[in-house]
Amino acid sequence: MSPIELRSGEAVRLAARNGQLRGQTAGLACGFVQANLVILPAAEATDFLRFCMRNPKPCPVLDVSEPGRRTMPRLGGDLDVARDLPAYRIWRDGNLVEEAQDIEALWRSDLVTFALGCSFSFEEALVADGLTVRHVEAGRNVPMYRTSLACEPAGPFAGPLVVSMRPFRPADAVRAIQITSRYPAVHGAPVHLGRPDLIGIADLDAPDYGDAVAVADDEIPVFWACGVTPQAVITAARTPFAITHAPGCMLVTDLVNARLAAG
Amino acid sequence: MSPIELRSGEAVRLAARNGQLRGQTAGLACGFVQANLVILPAAEATDFLRFCMRNPKPCPVLDVSEPGRRTMPRLGGDLDVARDLPAYRIWRDGNLVEEAQDIEALWRSDLVTFALGCSFSFEEALVADGLTVRHVEAGRNVPMYRTSLACEPAGPFAGPLVVSMRPFRPADAVRAIQITSRYPAVHGAPVHLGRPDLIGIADLDAPDYGDAVAVADDEIPVFWACGVTPQAVITAARTPFAITHAPGCMLVTDLVNARLAAG
Repeated sequence: MSPIELRSGEAVRLAARNGQLRGQTAGLACGFVQANLVILPAAEATDFLRFCMRNPKPCPVLDVSEPGRRTMPRLGGDLDVARDLPAYRIWRDGNLVEEAQDIEALWRSDLVTFALGCSFSFEEALVADGLTVRHVEAGRNVPMYRTSLACEPAGPFAGPLVVSMRPFRPADAVRAIQITSRYPAVHGAPVHLGRPDLIGIADLDAPDYGDAVAVADDEIPVFWACGVTPQAVITAARTPFAITHAPGCMLVTDLVNARLAAG
Repeated sequence: MSPIELRSGEAVRLAARNGQLRGQTAGLACGFVQANLVILPAAEATDFLRFCMRNPKPCPVLDVSEPGRRTMPRLGGDLDVARDLPAYRIWRDGNLVEEAQDIEALWRSDLVTFALGCSFSFEEALVADGLTVRHVEAGRNVPMYRTSLACEPAGPFAGPLVVSMRPFRPADAVRAIQITSRYPAVHGAPVHLGRPDLIGIADLDAPDYGDAVAVADDEIPVFWACGVTPQAVITAARTPFAITHAPGCMLVTDLVNARLAAG
């Protein structure tokens, strides 16, 4: 199935469910909201929800499932969180132990699913405004960095803020801030810009996740809170058991990006 | 008369008119809109209005008077542009030739007055949000710089964009961009940040107008289009005759800053 056919959230989910789509969801189902996924046992879920409330920029909650339910009717009519992503990551005691195409065999009646906003939504708004998003243009993953900024802890969940970086000329950086400010549900405005050293990033060419991209001589790096933060926190907290999406392999919903705009 | 008594636009205007107020209007009539003033003969006024339309960030037009009229009823009920500022500057062939406390003797039936938005309005919004504006804190004038960025010309009016600079920590810079984006009528969002060299500013410690302020090690300079731009353009264009406000001695109106917010 060619990507061009995957024009809706439902089409992407069914292709992932049927094993026809095994790679990234970036660029698929243009206009539809994609989400970071975090699945935790109910015993940890309340603490994690508090963690999200205290850290809304890296962890903007789009929806939380009922315990044990694989459906999320607010995000999609025919949606199965255990099968509808192209790839999952399984975590035990904070360590990544496995990637899997589905998690049906791991499903438990106490699992709670969190869908968190993803930067794909605001990148679509940036491109629609005429801005060039470097890693999209280059066909790479966005570069992501663990920072020296600590998230607000909640119960066992604590750890560093992870940020994604996009370079812009200064005037375009101002415009990017204006645009992303309208999308608090998908990380919102940047958390930092211009001076990576101030947030513990020593080398922009060595991201902790994703791919490095060039920062031109007349550009400054602009940093947004990133939905990979929960994975860094799961590692830091040595969470006994968790499942997340694999990088770039998101839950594609039936929600539309335009409806996330706050203003 | 103590500044504390000058709580309204009308009180400031009357104090200036009566000669009781001869200094700056910064910090007076808190909450009321202050304006940059440019007065030109009707022969040049149309070109200048086109110049403002093409350069709304440095020259946001709050109001234009009828030719020969010293009143501006949309800005203040009892308002006389020839007497209500603490100090004026007289320009001939682009040169500053004189400062004056009033311009009644120079008034002509063909003069047109432009009131342009002023950064005092957005600074009030920044402070209200809890941000510290360095030059206000230090009791100094804002530092201003002629840049290598050219304004869009209109007729004889052409010249460099002048910017004002306020230093902020990066996260506060993002917030300052969000706040000032709501105030397009008073210069709006910054035009540049982080890299003065990219817009022809070699030394932040040597402003072309106003006073230098310290930029701390964890701060970046943020640059807004500045209402002093018309004065640089009058000089560049060798405008035969013009009157402006003297720096910091603004026209204080009856409009309230809060009503300028776009969103």
